[in-house]
Amino acid sequence: MADEREVAVGRAREGDEQARALLERARDPSRVLALSDGVFAIIITLLVLDVHVPELTAGHSLAAALRETRPSFVAFVISFIVAGMYWVGHRDVFGLIRRTDRGLVWLNLLYLLPVCLLPFGASLIGRFDREPVAVRIYGLVLVAIAVMRAAIWVYVTSRPHLLWQRLDDRQRRVGLALTLGPGLAYLLALLLAEIAPGVSLAIYGTLPVLYFLSITVLRSGRKRDQEYADFT
Amino acid sequence: MADEREVAVGRAREGDEQARALLERARDPSRVLALSDGVFAIIITLLVLDVHVPELTAGHSLAAALRETRPSFVAFVISFIVAGMYWVGHRDVFGLIRRTDRGLVWLNLLYLLPVCLLPFGASLIGRFDREPVAVRIYGLVLVAIAVMRAAIWVYVTSRPHLLWQRLDDRQRRVGLALTLGPGLAYLLALLLAEIAPGVSLAIYGTLPVLYFLSITVLRSGRKRDQEYADFT
Amino acid sequence: MADEREVAVGRAREGDEQARALLERARDPSRVLALSDGVFAIIITLLVLDVHVPELTAGHSLAAALRETRPSFVAFVISFIVAGMYWVGHRDVFGLIRRTDRGLVWLNLLYLLPVCLLPFGASLIGRFDREPVAVRIYGLVLVAIAVMRAAIWVYVTSRPHLLWQRLDDRQRRVGLALTLGPGLAYLLALLLAEIAPGVSLAIYGTLPVLYFLSITVLRSGRKRDQEYADFT
Amino acid sequence: MADEREVAVGRAREGDEQARALLERARDPSRVLALSDGVFAIIITLLVLDVHVPELTAGHSLAAALRETRPSFVAFVISFIVAGMYWVGHRDVFGLIRRTDRGLVWLNLLYLLPVCLLPFGASLIGRFDREPVAVRIYGLVLVAIAVMRAAIWVYVTSRPHLLWQRLDDRQRRVGLALTLGPGLAYLLALLLAEIAPGVSLAIYGTLPVLYFLSITVLRSGRKRDQEYADFT
Repeated sequence: MADEREVAVGRAREGDEQARALLERARDPSRVLALSDGVFAIIITLLVLDVHVPELTAGHSLAAALRETRPSFVAFVISFIVAGMYWVGHRDVFGLIRRTDRGLVWLNLLYLLPVCLLPFGASLIGRFDREPVAVRIYGLVLVAIAVMRAAIWVYVTSRPHLLWQRLDDRQRRVGLALTLGPGLAYLLALLLAEIAPGVSLAIYGTLPVLYFLSITVLRSGRKRDQEYADFT
Repeated sequence: MADEREVAVGRAREGDEQARALLERARDPSRVLALSDGVFAIIITLLVLDVHVPELTAGHSLAAALRETRPSFVAFVISFIVAGMYWVGHRDVFGLIRRTDRGLVWLNLLYLLPVCLLPFGASLIGRFDREPVAVRIYGLVLVAIAVMRAAIWVYVTSRPHLLWQRLDDRQRRVGLALTLGPGLAYLLALLLAEIAPGVSLAIYGTLPVLYFLSITVLRSGRKRDQEYADFT
Repeated sequence: MADEREVAVGRAREGDEQARALLERARDPSRVLALSDGVFAIIITLLVLDVHVPELTAGHSLAAALRETRPSFVAFVISFIVAGMYWVGHRDVFGLIRRTDRGLVWLNLLYLLPVCLLPFGASLIGRFDREPVAVRIYGLVLVAIAVMRAAIWVYVTSRPHLLWQRLDDRQRRVGLALTLGPGLAYLLALLLAEIAPGVSLAIYGTLPVLYFLSITVLRSGRKRDQEYADFT
Repeated sequence: MADEREVAVGRAREGDEQARALLERARDPSRVLALSDGVFAIIITLLVLDVHVPELTAGHSLAAALRETRPSFVAFVISFIVAGMYWVGHRDVFGLIRRTDRGLVWLNLLYLLPVCLLPFGASLIGRFDREPVAVRIYGLVLVAIAVMRAAIWVYVTSRPHLLWQRLDDRQRRVGLALTLGPGLAYLLALLLAEIAPGVSLAIYGTLPVLYFLSITVLRSGRKRDQEYADFT
């Protein structure tokens, strides 16, 4: 009798373990990362497609023709650096994440959506850097990305079972500030596009530099063991 | 003598084990997933290629020129969301799958084939949303995808050695219904395209919403431990 | 003294082990597979890029315009199936391979080179199926692929340390025949292109069917445990 | 009391271990490799996109039309081989690397930037092989790649905690020479482009051959266990 009961308990536990193993596999983030890396690889290289070898027409030197490809070259470099920056940020957050659930899978997809529009935005301001419409559209893309990054941050940090290690409130706030801060700056740039497109462009250009500086300062500071709290 | 026999048995077993190890490696699904993720990453981002920065002609404002890129933008967003949905579904089924065989490898390729045509279909209805031909072609693509998903589901659930854990009949039927249901709805939309393209479009638009709602309801329901049976 | 000697031997062994570990890492095939899967994902989907939504000109129905995209659609389907077939074959051989060396890395790259030309070849015969030049070029691509597959097969099977398990001579010959056989058929098709392009096309179309049939027969045959010897 | 102290020490150690585990995960190079392989797969196949099936105009044979696609075919083959060579080199260095840090992540991105321009450069000299501008631009791309490779080499070899095994000074110097050597040759070619574009082209063409020869000689030499020091 006792044996049977034990066997039953054993079976129930085995069932539990199997169910848990299935759930763990369903929560494995590896394919989310594979898709994201694939999308980033495409986005990062997308604008090289626009850097075309010019067709020469009569009375036109190659040097002059190549000068015309400069805007697409500039757009490629901007897009490469900015998308690379977001990829590094994506790698940083997902370094904290142990499990994914359906919500996170979809938030990640909705984050990749505006990221895919980065090359278009970069190409737009690479060609029409004085046009308020172009400046506004690029700003919109950057704001959408910042909003989605903040959404992912809030989502995962309020679900500690998705993380390798629970973050304390200070770390969560710092992480949120690091995503929303640039978002607010981009929103300002977006609103200023009509009146002062030059200021907007300055904001777009300065922020990545500020980001590199702040990261460097934060890392060389004393808070070495809190490094993992850096979202960006 | 006895020793020799034991050695012979040992060798045979070793041979068996080597053969089994080889078979296991041949059945490892990792490369199938790598190819699928690569294809999905391309499909998801494919229509961004069509969102081009307009060339300005004289007497044409940038704002007006950008308005003309709206259909390709709409097509990109539709295609991104729909392909993303199918990728999530693909991840869900393959979360149940432990081993692949030649049949599954090919079913998966034949599933990716109509998936690749999603961007074309989305682009078609993004531009010609009143044209029955466009509505019918998009429906055809969606029906083909549903058929292939059902084929994969039936194939793997009737071969328990391919799964991490055998599914019971109820789970198999629920999974089949969840793939064939949308398929039938899309077939109806396809048949209605000539008479009432508006109704077809409504079906295309409503189904993903219904899918999200049903998933949410199913997940918050009591049947927590049967979550793994959700095919979509 | 004895101790010192032992420590010295221990160190030497440690050094040996480190060197062996480094060598093992250098021979890890994972990145070779990652690059190959990426290239195949691109090649498989490449011709979808050519299936464009037509621009409508006055007095031209959408149905008629779509009929003009048929050749690019046919080319996409041919290219998808053929490239998919080669991907399955690539997965099969590399399922036998445990380690790579510089030679194999380069043979694999030189195999991917003609594979990349498959979409071009498919597109060519999709459009100019009566033109001997088109038929010949497609044949050239297929012969080049067959030659590279045979080269990889000979290279790895004559270096058993690269394999999970040494193959016997019969298995090696069967594998070579399975790669060179189609190659010879394609060579014949190539040579017949000028005189009888129809026969060449028939060979291109029949061989994949024969391949599927032979695989099915081989697998359902008695030689179950020799399944791993199938190259294709 | 003693127990409490022990528990406290235990906790601190546990905290240390968790922090170390987080740091290890943050330093895991797998996503860096996934992105790089994705980018290389795209770059390697990029110029196939340019090998288009020609549209036939009246009085124009297919054979003649195909002859016009030869420059894009040549550009594809050059770009494939050269990018493949850099991918093999990338795989070799990262075979020595155990951990990444933010610096290495960014150096790798900045290395991928000029690599992305390889197809453009190859396409340029494939079409305008007599034009000094084309020859100079291709040289610039190759010099930029060599500089970034040297930067990665110096960065990782001076941070042994990033490596699987510390390299000695001789190995570091050999590795540096193997990256800077070709860089200097390319710089020379770049400077000669105006006066003698033919010499520059000869340098571009000879170096890969020299590289293959030197690798083969180095490998067949006695220094077998120092093989891992080969950067290229």
